[in-house]
Amino acid sequence: MSSFDSTAHIEGVIITPLRIIGDDRGAVLHMLRSDSEGFLGFGECYFSEIIPGAIKAWKKHMIQNQNLTVPVGRIKLVVFDNREHSRTKGNLLILEIGRPDSYVRITLPAGLWYGFQCISEVPALLVNCADLPHSKEEGLTMDLKNNLIPFSWEK
Amino acid sequence: MSSFDSTAHIEGVIITPLRIIGDDRGAVLHMLRSDSEGFLGFGECYFSEIIPGAIKAWKKHMIQNQNLTVPVGRIKLVVFDNREHSRTKGNLLILEIGRPDSYVRITLPAGLWYGFQCISEVPALLVNCADLPHSKEEGLTMDLKNNLIPFSWEK
Repeated sequence: MSSFDSTAHIEGVIITPLRIIGDDRGAVLHMLRSDSEGFLGFGECYFSEIIPGAIKAWKKHMIQNQNLTVPVGRIKLVVFDNREHSRTKGNLLILEIGRPDSYVRITLPAGLWYGFQCISEVPALLVNCADLPHSKEEGLTMDLKNNLIPFSWEK
Repeated sequence: MSSFDSTAHIEGVIITPLRIIGDDRGAVLHMLRSDSEGFLGFGECYFSEIIPGAIKAWKKHMIQNQNLTVPVGRIKLVVFDNREHSRTKGNLLILEIGRPDSYVRITLPAGLWYGFQCISEVPALLVNCADLPHSKEEGLTMDLKNNLIPFSWEK
């Protein structure tokens, strides 16, 4: 399996298709329930907007587990597994997320490097429901260009 | 105090200004933490999109408490207190919510009638972090035009 295969599996990552309930006035979109697969408790919900073409990468949370959706716009999400004891160490996951064809929840366990780029003409909104409140102490960042992750962002 | 005074107070409703953390690539927007005022537990997070001019009203939850934000677009939110034992029974709260000047979290306790209209040129996104998962049994609806709520929506 190529490291660039977008269907590559990463241990612990769950991709859950979500329901969009159509309505002439505007849709209702599911995100996360306390009985959803991948829910590990509620610490914080926050939003990250990304303007067209912009890239936010790379980040890693040491202990925070995330649940991500993209209700507005479209993003490319790239996840890299460099966890020492993971059976999928070295795998890269590349996903395009957005309505209507790819409206999903991504459960992203702690310990994975990830980044995202807005690939829509409108700003995208990434929603994160994490199991712990944000804390600078447990978050790591790395430059876009590095010698670890086998992926080059195209601006 | 006029029932139409937008500064009218309704018992239990909390309006919390939220932080927008600017970034050339797109802002990070706070929503809710487990230690936030108004957090009563996590049941479900979902989104309600409203297209420009559209109205979603009226609704009431019997037991679900909500935390609402509008990260995209702008809405008019109208809340009516018809709770029998409320000290603010009869009050109407009219709020315009949206970035950048009115990016707030509205804590909306159970038992209040509410509705909202998109007043921006782009579809608005309402995010709800509620303390209970959605259940048809505890939600009531009422027609836009009714004899109870002293407010007329303008299309």
